[in-house]
Amino acid sequence: MRWNGWGDPAKAKDLPLAVRTLLPLLLGRTRKPEPAVPLEAVVLSPSALDADDIEAFATIVGAEHVSTSHDARVRHSGGRSTPDLLRLRAREQTGPDGVVHPASHDEVTACLRVAGERGIAVIPFGGGTSVVGALDPQRSEHHAVVSLDMRRLTGVLRVDDVSGEAVIAAGTTGPHAEAQLAAHGYELGHYPQSFRYATIGGFAAARSSGQNSAGNGRFDTMVTGIRVATPTGDLDLGRSPGSAAGPDLIRVLLGSEGAFGVITEVRVRVHPIPRERVVESWTFPDFARGAEGLRRVAQGGGGPTVIRLSDESETAVSLAQVGRIGRALAKGASAVTVYEGDGIAERRARVSELLRASGGASAGESAAEDWIAGRFDGPYLRDALLDAGVFCETLETATTWSNLEALKSAVDSALRDGFAASGARSYVMCHVSHVYPTGASLYFTVLAGIRAEPLSVWSAVKARTNDVIIATGGTISHHHAVGRDHAPWLESEIGSTGVRILRAIKRELDPAGILNPGALIPAERTP
Amino acid sequence: MRWNGWGDPAKAKDLPLAVRTLLPLLLGRTRKPEPAVPLEAVVLSPSALDADDIEAFATIVGAEHVSTSHDARVRHSGGRSTPDLLRLRAREQTGPDGVVHPASHDEVTACLRVAGERGIAVIPFGGGTSVVGALDPQRSEHHAVVSLDMRRLTGVLRVDDVSGEAVIAAGTTGPHAEAQLAAHGYELGHYPQSFRYATIGGFAAARSSGQNSAGNGRFDTMVTGIRVATPTGDLDLGRSPGSAAGPDLIRVLLGSEGAFGVITEVRVRVHPIPRERVVESWTFPDFARGAEGLRRVAQGGGGPTVIRLSDESETAVSLAQVGRIGRALAKGASAVTVYEGDGIAERRARVSELLRASGGASAGESAAEDWIAGRFDGPYLRDALLDAGVFCETLETATTWSNLEALKSAVDSALRDGFAASGARSYVMCHVSHVYPTGASLYFTVLAGIRAEPLSVWSAVKARTNDVIIATGGTISHHHAVGRDHAPWLESEIGSTGVRILRAIKRELDPAGILNPGALIPAERTP
Repeated sequence: MRWNGWGDPAKAKDLPLAVRTLLPLLLGRTRKPEPAVPLEAVVLSPSALDADDIEAFATIVGAEHVSTSHDARVRHSGGRSTPDLLRLRAREQTGPDGVVHPASHDEVTACLRVAGERGIAVIPFGGGTSVVGALDPQRSEHHAVVSLDMRRLTGVLRVDDVSGEAVIAAGTTGPHAEAQLAAHGYELGHYPQSFRYATIGGFAAARSSGQNSAGNGRFDTMVTGIRVATPTGDLDLGRSPGSAAGPDLIRVLLGSEGAFGVITEVRVRVHPIPRERVVESWTFPDFARGAEGLRRVAQGGGGPTVIRLSDESETAVSLAQVGRIGRALAKGASAVTVYEGDGIAERRARVSELLRASGGASAGESAAEDWIAGRFDGPYLRDALLDAGVFCETLETATTWSNLEALKSAVDSALRDGFAASGARSYVMCHVSHVYPTGASLYFTVLAGIRAEPLSVWSAVKARTNDVIIATGGTISHHHAVGRDHAPWLESEIGSTGVRILRAIKRELDPAGILNPGALIPAERTP
Repeated sequence: MRWNGWGDPAKAKDLPLAVRTLLPLLLGRTRKPEPAVPLEAVVLSPSALDADDIEAFATIVGAEHVSTSHDARVRHSGGRSTPDLLRLRAREQTGPDGVVHPASHDEVTACLRVAGERGIAVIPFGGGTSVVGALDPQRSEHHAVVSLDMRRLTGVLRVDDVSGEAVIAAGTTGPHAEAQLAAHGYELGHYPQSFRYATIGGFAAARSSGQNSAGNGRFDTMVTGIRVATPTGDLDLGRSPGSAAGPDLIRVLLGSEGAFGVITEVRVRVHPIPRERVVESWTFPDFARGAEGLRRVAQGGGGPTVIRLSDESETAVSLAQVGRIGRALAKGASAVTVYEGDGIAERRARVSELLRASGGASAGESAAEDWIAGRFDGPYLRDALLDAGVFCETLETATTWSNLEALKSAVDSALRDGFAASGARSYVMCHVSHVYPTGASLYFTVLAGIRAEPLSVWSAVKARTNDVIIATGGTISHHHAVGRDHAPWLESEIGSTGVRILRAIKRELDPAGILNPGALIPAERTP
């Protein structure tokens, strides 16, 4: 992963000409930012780990798997939100005091014991793709903070062909898991935008949602078992595909974001690799009719593997399809459908009938093919936009179908008005990324020509937008999770009693508070 | 509900002649038990509620909704397991000290406050159909115990036609909820055997599973929101159809069995009433081939609404179909399939192909129709068997497909050997009641000719069987829940760290421990 941007440095691209032409029309003139500092010029505070700390971890994982190097600390200093990337372009940065690479569940347990004994905070680190501040090296009251890099716990550990289940080590990346499963003829089929770098443990800890938005969308519905190391004991949950043995504690760990324990293994449902795939684009007169069509499909059941709908703004600039950016401006609202597996012809016929009833018209295959080809590449474009002085960030929420238009409109306005209040021109786009029988998610992308202090401008706009999301009945996050960025809004979502449940679990499992301090659970209000 | 048996007293039946002929062949001679005592002859300890206690509750709910009558106390003294029914036939019984009937969320909250202040334990009571001791009036360290009868919180409160959701008061029974939803054209479609009496809140608290075992099987997958009164604050969860805003706390309350709070409202996904229903019976050479067929269907997706498979023993006596009991003994393993909704012809064709590939042969409609007609009537038969001196009880578990045969065989043996050790002849039957892509549930019915002390004989057999379920990788309960009967085995299932999570939540929400003491959470071991 590029140390201060997304993905493979070799794939970094300049802005396409069409985009460079379009941007001034949307945002006015932008100001080219200061060049990013090179890695070696970054200034970090000295590591707070002393020799005994390092020795204690090295005894567990081996000296070569404990690092306090400048490079390792910078590379574990945060995630990949736009604020993270802006901070990574600056000279003064904050990194963890060291990075520890355990290779097994027992080594994780031992690392947590050492960290507890020595008063060291621990930030579990998978693919490093958090966009909500879940990886910030927050020391809290502890004397140091280490990043616990999970990527040596890797590989598909067991496959049960009869039951269609696989146990995967938490540090396995998406592509690595799929390659090993493919050798058995299986697919997991979880494709979030971070797929190429994110890990199985990260999917579980953050309650990830993949782009197979109507098929195997939510990672939490694929998980049948989980193994977790906590500072005070292990969890090994999931004896059966269905149970009434009290509350489903797997669901307490899914979404726990490293605050309760470190997920070391995940058991997941897998399925045979689909033999067939059919894609089709659609166009609707407007977003409202398109949303109605998606609702009918979601409520009708047995539909497509993927279904997504871009609003008029996103459709116009084709930003949803990286490969098509800047082509002739399209009208209306465009949608992508993908079908995989069995019975595609019947499913497609049923879906097509429902979409046509909402004013949809088929628009062929090519736009949908382009979406598939570019679906993991959005973040590369963001790096190029930042280089050009264009602020680019995303946020997402979800609500019931009956509240969808109201929420979309409120968030749209909050973003536009927020940037306008700081004197920045902005362009806000939205798509429905996931559908459910009872509602859908909304994924917003915003471009803005921020002339100064982008971090503080965005912080204000984002806070205002979060307030509006809560006030309008949305969730503070459909699939990016809470981290530190959303923690102040969690109480608005789950109530003070809900927060007390989380705190009670945290106190029980991590009484010293060494695990990911500040993430997930809102700070106690001082009276 | 018949006070010491199941259901509508007018529907109570004598044992059919065919069963009376069959039983001696299976179990030898049984001994007709002592006649059950009449309600008025039951002996209870005097109520421990004093006049101030009663006045405090009456101030909240009205004097006419607080009862310490003999009748009310006996009728709230437990659930409907076979041990419950045997206890209800005896003279000396244990009832709650009184019964309180709140009519709103706020009244529930106020009742919990009064109970906490006055040191009174509270047993939330819905339909009274628990078969795991979840309703035992356990006083624990408190000076009295009341049953909190939820059936005045009743009715469908709101319907969102666009989103396909309904908010239902927790005390609404299954038939009442379905009748009110039907007026909107909707169905919930949750049909556990207790459907006619159990409540929506009970479905949620116990993580119920319905007989639409491959369709809307698990109640927890239908719940999109929940409102709960706890002794220390309210919970109102479920802002969105999907969320990554931390762990899914709805899942902490589903399965909480009244130990964390009192569920007062549940928001559920509903669907249009299916216009069409097709049923078909199948027969397989044996259980193993049938299970293979069900597995193929569960893993193939898009299948039937109901699919169940009886083993050879159950098939032989047709006990799975109450209306067919004692007809000509059938060979092999029989299955029932039901299809509802859209695309039935394609779904049925796909399922039939998979079942035939496992040696299945269609056996027409009539056996499946009989199963539907009698599917809520099993418990009536149990009453008649008890009258005839035949012990009859059920238990259930679930596991992965790869472990299904091993678990079935181990539980079979544990039951048979357990009864044999006490000198009782027994007949053990089993069916697969719910299927998942990764596994299935096993539902056992046992008949035994216990000559003396049936409660202690069953207690020993059940304990031995629970040990075997855990040792063989099953869950201690797929859908009956934990209650007090399974609590000693919960730690074997979720581990000591899992139990600590439950205790931490309990301490936080119910620090005085007034809610359903002894249910769900295992007693602390004395060191």
